[in-house]
Amino acid sequence: MLFGSSEGNCTSIEDCFIINSSRPLNAMAPVGAGLWRTLRAHQVYGANTDVGKTIVSTVLCNAIQRQKQRAAFLKPVSTGPLGDADDRHMKKYGAGTLTKCLYQFDEPVSPHIAAKQKTKTVPRDDALLAAIHKTLSQWARTELDFALVETAGGVHSPGPNGNSQADLYRPLRLPIVLVADSRLGGISSSISAYESLLVRGYDVQSVLLFRDDYYQNHDYLGGFFRKKSIPLVSLPAPPVKPSQSDADSLARDEEAMFSYYRQASQEDSVAQLLEEMKIKNVERIDRLAEMSSRAQDLIWYPFTQHHGMRPKDITVIDSAHDDFFQTYGTSPVDAAASELRPTFDGSASWWTQGLGHGNPDLSLSAAYAAGRYGHVMFAGAVHEPALTLADTLLKTLDNPRFAKVFYTDNGSTGMEVALKMGLRVACDRYGWDASKEQISILGLKGSYHGDTIGVMDCSDPSVYNQKVEWYRGRGHWFDFPLVKMVDGRWKVEVPAGLRQALGSDSEFESLGTIFDLDSRANSETSQLYKEYIRQTIQDLVKKQGMKFGALILEPVILGAGGMLFCDPLFQRCLTDVVRDHPDLFTSDAVAQTSDGSWSGLPVIFDEVFTGLYRLGRPTSASFLGVDPDIAVNAKLLTGGLIPLCTTVASQEIFETFLSPEKSDALLHGHSYTAHPVGCTVAVESIKTMNAMNENGTFDQYKTKWNKGAGAFPGKTGPEVWSVWSPDLLHDLSCAESVEGVFAIGTVLSVSLKDTQGGGYTSNAAKGLQQQLSAGSHKFNVHSRVLGNVLYLMSSVTSKTESLQELERLLRTALV
Amino acid sequence: MLFGSSEGNCTSIEDCFIINSSRPLNAMAPVGAGLWRTLRAHQVYGANTDVGKTIVSTVLCNAIQRQKQRAAFLKPVSTGPLGDADDRHMKKYGAGTLTKCLYQFDEPVSPHIAAKQKTKTVPRDDALLAAIHKTLSQWARTELDFALVETAGGVHSPGPNGNSQADLYRPLRLPIVLVADSRLGGISSSISAYESLLVRGYDVQSVLLFRDDYYQNHDYLGGFFRKKSIPLVSLPAPPVKPSQSDADSLARDEEAMFSYYRQASQEDSVAQLLEEMKIKNVERIDRLAEMSSRAQDLIWYPFTQHHGMRPKDITVIDSAHDDFFQTYGTSPVDAAASELRPTFDGSASWWTQGLGHGNPDLSLSAAYAAGRYGHVMFAGAVHEPALTLADTLLKTLDNPRFAKVFYTDNGSTGMEVALKMGLRVACDRYGWDASKEQISILGLKGSYHGDTIGVMDCSDPSVYNQKVEWYRGRGHWFDFPLVKMVDGRWKVEVPAGLRQALGSDSEFESLGTIFDLDSRANSETSQLYKEYIRQTIQDLVKKQGMKFGALILEPVILGAGGMLFCDPLFQRCLTDVVRDHPDLFTSDAVAQTSDGSWSGLPVIFDEVFTGLYRLGRPTSASFLGVDPDIAVNAKLLTGGLIPLCTTVASQEIFETFLSPEKSDALLHGHSYTAHPVGCTVAVESIKTMNAMNENGTFDQYKTKWNKGAGAFPGKTGPEVWSVWSPDLLHDLSCAESVEGVFAIGTVLSVSLKDTQGGGYTSNAAKGLQQQLSAGSHKFNVHSRVLGNVLYLMSSVTSKTESLQELERLLRTALV
Repeated sequence: MLFGSSEGNCTSIEDCFIINSSRPLNAMAPVGAGLWRTLRAHQVYGANTDVGKTIVSTVLCNAIQRQKQRAAFLKPVSTGPLGDADDRHMKKYGAGTLTKCLYQFDEPVSPHIAAKQKTKTVPRDDALLAAIHKTLSQWARTELDFALVETAGGVHSPGPNGNSQADLYRPLRLPIVLVADSRLGGISSSISAYESLLVRGYDVQSVLLFRDDYYQNHDYLGGFFRKKSIPLVSLPAPPVKPSQSDADSLARDEEAMFSYYRQASQEDSVAQLLEEMKIKNVERIDRLAEMSSRAQDLIWYPFTQHHGMRPKDITVIDSAHDDFFQTYGTSPVDAAASELRPTFDGSASWWTQGLGHGNPDLSLSAAYAAGRYGHVMFAGAVHEPALTLADTLLKTLDNPRFAKVFYTDNGSTGMEVALKMGLRVACDRYGWDASKEQISILGLKGSYHGDTIGVMDCSDPSVYNQKVEWYRGRGHWFDFPLVKMVDGRWKVEVPAGLRQALGSDSEFESLGTIFDLDSRANSETSQLYKEYIRQTIQDLVKKQGMKFGALILEPVILGAGGMLFCDPLFQRCLTDVVRDHPDLFTSDAVAQTSDGSWSGLPVIFDEVFTGLYRLGRPTSASFLGVDPDIAVNAKLLTGGLIPLCTTVASQEIFETFLSPEKSDALLHGHSYTAHPVGCTVAVESIKTMNAMNENGTFDQYKTKWNKGAGAFPGKTGPEVWSVWSPDLLHDLSCAESVEGVFAIGTVLSVSLKDTQGGGYTSNAAKGLQQQLSAGSHKFNVHSRVLGNVLYLMSSVTSKTESLQELERLLRTALV
Repeated sequence: MLFGSSEGNCTSIEDCFIINSSRPLNAMAPVGAGLWRTLRAHQVYGANTDVGKTIVSTVLCNAIQRQKQRAAFLKPVSTGPLGDADDRHMKKYGAGTLTKCLYQFDEPVSPHIAAKQKTKTVPRDDALLAAIHKTLSQWARTELDFALVETAGGVHSPGPNGNSQADLYRPLRLPIVLVADSRLGGISSSISAYESLLVRGYDVQSVLLFRDDYYQNHDYLGGFFRKKSIPLVSLPAPPVKPSQSDADSLARDEEAMFSYYRQASQEDSVAQLLEEMKIKNVERIDRLAEMSSRAQDLIWYPFTQHHGMRPKDITVIDSAHDDFFQTYGTSPVDAAASELRPTFDGSASWWTQGLGHGNPDLSLSAAYAAGRYGHVMFAGAVHEPALTLADTLLKTLDNPRFAKVFYTDNGSTGMEVALKMGLRVACDRYGWDASKEQISILGLKGSYHGDTIGVMDCSDPSVYNQKVEWYRGRGHWFDFPLVKMVDGRWKVEVPAGLRQALGSDSEFESLGTIFDLDSRANSETSQLYKEYIRQTIQDLVKKQGMKFGALILEPVILGAGGMLFCDPLFQRCLTDVVRDHPDLFTSDAVAQTSDGSWSGLPVIFDEVFTGLYRLGRPTSASFLGVDPDIAVNAKLLTGGLIPLCTTVASQEIFETFLSPEKSDALLHGHSYTAHPVGCTVAVESIKTMNAMNENGTFDQYKTKWNKGAGAFPGKTGPEVWSVWSPDLLHDLSCAESVEGVFAIGTVLSVSLKDTQGGGYTSNAAKGLQQQLSAGSHKFNVHSRVLGNVLYLMSSVTSKTESLQELERLLRTALV
């Protein structure tokens, strides 16, 4: 037996054993995609049940063996009477093909029914996957050239645990041999099966079916698949099964089958197909091997200094599933290891990922919208996805001020819109002529709102913008107290220059207490904050003659600026001062009153990164207890699939743009505004995340955090929690090389001590990044650093076992 | 007979007739989607052949009739022996259901095979669709309450002309009754069939299947569809067909069937389902009816003055297919008309549309990429779609200067990147410190490059930007000669103020001769253009001290500025002067030589609108014979599905950003940079359009244009052509209300005389827009106006008959 040892519940047949499902959950490593240079492994799917998968497999294996190569056949789950088992058939007729079955059910029904009927242990899906991967890996160490992994029934026939096989086996993403249906109706079922595989990101590499001169499906399907550049081979129909089961009949059938296989496996088209499959396997690996240098040739990367960059600095991503990229060239040196390795997507693909890579629900949502609409004109028109998204979003944001949704394509464009809104309403109320005087914004140091020049001007001068020729920072940016855990204690650290104004650092017993703004609002700190803010603005306006058009904040965490966790009380005080003191911004009487939703300056929250569950809540505004006048959401809006952005505003802000003059309107709009594909996926994503929040999916984390270090004292309301464990945080914060850490929602941030002074150009975190990149035998980790900060970000669906392994890797590296 | 008259090739059975396919191609109107308030029409699809579609239909019709409502059954195409025909079955057992078959084949094979075997005429797909729509419309005029349109075989079983039924019937987009498969393997085939329908934008409204206690598919599928909020009803299994065909057996079978239908049609779940279907039909129409006012409540529209806007100004788009929206509330008042009307997408959905709405190939491409990757990190990584797109694009653009592809999300962001590139290289070469001095751009009056503030600053002051608080136009914009056809003649019109410098208007015998730049380059006009340009720049630099960082042009047509067709010779002269006279821009010696790809100023072409076949060629740069240093493509890049943008640059420009300093890099990048879904769709789109160009799809237009008014004299090379006919152009240009017209590629522009002086705020074109919006009995037209200009834009796949009807509408309105 090639793999492991047969365990307790194994059925009696040789080479067939059950996977032990009693291993603890967290022992299971994620299964990587399968791709070997020496072993050409394919998965055989059928367009339907009973289309002849095993016969086709046997033909292929016969042909391989005939070519003096070695074939192997793996049946992960087999149903039906033992004598009929597909692996038995292969053993008998496979001309020496190595055969193996991992799990056998006696009933000729779908595995999920068989599993229900069985009393014995059913293998877990991940255990099944791991066993297949392990078997193939072991086969790759041998002389074997070719392996077929045969599924049961059709592509969506349920596996033992009731999940569709197409979903269940997806992490392996083996190239597919599709056995099409040659019967009446087989054209339809074959194409639909093909499409279901496509929707899950499989590569269908070849199609085989039996010739039937009456229905001629091979003719139609041959044309169909030719257009997709997928070869189709039709085989002679196999001998008809004997209607009687006497010994003579069986012997005749046996001889007929042997003869069939002899003949069919000699067909030129079969040999040609096998040659193509061989070439494709080589070409696929060769392509992966050259991709990084081709990319180096052709691609100008975002936010990347290409100087000194080498192809090996470019990660080659073959595909992705759940939290993992399947990367090429990252595997440990081992001739038999799969060429692809699971790499945890530790930046959540630049903060976008929410519901996992290759999520079939999102994939189908996208396809549905594409099929129903494509893209349709939005100016002057409406379609269901845009309307439903607006409605769903407004309910989710739950801000009584919000009334109108404006769509754009990404966070940067959405912030440009927010900026245009904010400046207009302020100029309108205060009677400023912006063409004659500079209107600025108020913000925080290190804030970042995107890469288009308008919103770049909303950030203070920094390495990001200082060399952009048209950048002209237009604002004032407050320095602010930072939240971090240091040496096991939660601290609010006041920048050295502000200690006189804001007091000294303070400690908190939990992250929750820092967010207990109702209590903190009456503290002395709060008074100091407010007075400092008020005085600063007054000086800027009165002494320097500045005019301000909006307050722009990233609530709680300033992302691109370096994962800066701002004391939420400071942000609350900023909005309070700006709203409570309209007189600060003008000497005109008009400012003294506000009859609408906003007062002082319009408050714009950039929740592009922090919103929609990134920090564990639908909005990051809720942490501050502030209802902004304008908010921008993007990244997680589509669950991590495609670009889309919303800028949401109050009715009062909207009304400022009403006028008989067309030119007073908000003349902004991208061609793909409110594209139905994006809106449909966003509706699906938000509903999914809201449902997870409501159905207790996050309770395991909330429970951990609501005792001890994360506790929010005396609150039963919205919690502060993270997918990262409080224990990890504590231990990292005590590590020698660590300057401070924090975690909230899906975000973990580790600031490393840097004798060079930190900042975006620091290299302090590179060492840790490299250690994560090396990873363990289970997987390695893609991460991004911002200067001396290394952050990790999960999706909202990340599996506990993956997070635990990540925590283990962090501890190994730092503690 | 309810519909038409039986014609020549009709089969013998009653109520079954063939559609006459001898009607000329252009007589066929597009078929709209079917939705009636009084008649609940559904299409019945089967998960496979032989799953009991007709039995399920008969149960439903029995139940309807039992409720004292009236049911009808339409079998568009029936195959199999006459006695077995599904409509026969319904006639017999349908309890008075009105039944009709449109086309009957005797063989029990897929219709496409039957059609091949028949000698008689096969109905064209559009004729079949039209007949179904007409039949249902007529039924809607009667007392009928409920109609089922039954397909043949499975969802992808080919129709009579070999196209998948799921594609063939898509324009009707009737709500679907899916009959699932209760047999072994039926879970898989049912789910795959459902997914194939979903990918084409169908709404599956209910699922029915037979109960099978052994396989229990109804149990599994019930759970599956419940998660999708789709009701599933399981029916008792029908009587087993008699194995013998003697009179007694047949009589017993008949009785058993009657008894089955009596029983099954009384099941509570059936009654409940019918009630749900009824409610859904009402709710769908009610929802459509309220959508415009809901949109008015919730949506802040792009580029829209909401003042005075009423819900009825908002077009409600139910869905879209090929060139047509299906719009609600636009149908002529007629109680029996479908609530949805085909509306030609005459703005190509804001210039994006290329390959038709609801294109299943693009839909599947999107789904495949979503399934294989979701979105994956791009900075520091590479995936196949981004790499293949870069490669494909570089080959398609065919510009020897181009080396590197930078990805962003839309034209505006892509132009911001182009601007950053251009400014940097100019400052680098000329040694300017942009933080201390203003670097401007050179462009054309009326140019427009997007709505983010950086690229807004690249446009001259106009109604679009003058009220944007942070707008500061930074450049010089040349006025330029316009191309248009007036009174049947092609003219280049010189603006009044430039006549002294550039000479007077000139006439050309064809559009082609205007583009014959090789000949025109040596003309006196060319010398005048160049001298004027050179002198102007010299004055700006020497006298006004301006510094220029880039020349930015939309080649040929300035889109948003008002569909301004610039004399291509003027644009060519601009690039020539800018490149041939580096000394114009600086007094430094450094400028005198250029050792790389660019000289003088980097030339940036904004091909966001004009590129990728919008004007009939892969690039609009090719019309000028200029290889820009930087080009931006978007809109058509994804064939009109989702936002994506590329900024392509030369190696020399790329290298300017190389430095050991990270901060010298192009620090620009959106989270969804190079999202795999967009890249995959773009690869598919560009390849499709390139193939159309190469396989002669456009030859019909090229032929028309290469004689007479469009001719490109003495050229066999790249042509100038349009999907709009030269005759139309001629006639419109002679119309009294028309100031001028032009057409190129898919674009038609009609400038109307406007006593108020034209411009963006003009209302001159509104009248024409309203006439198009009223449309004809075939369809109506969505169009956009830019001031006194009404333009129409087709996709590259628009059907001749639709374009002809559009031309007819234009003639009716104007000539």
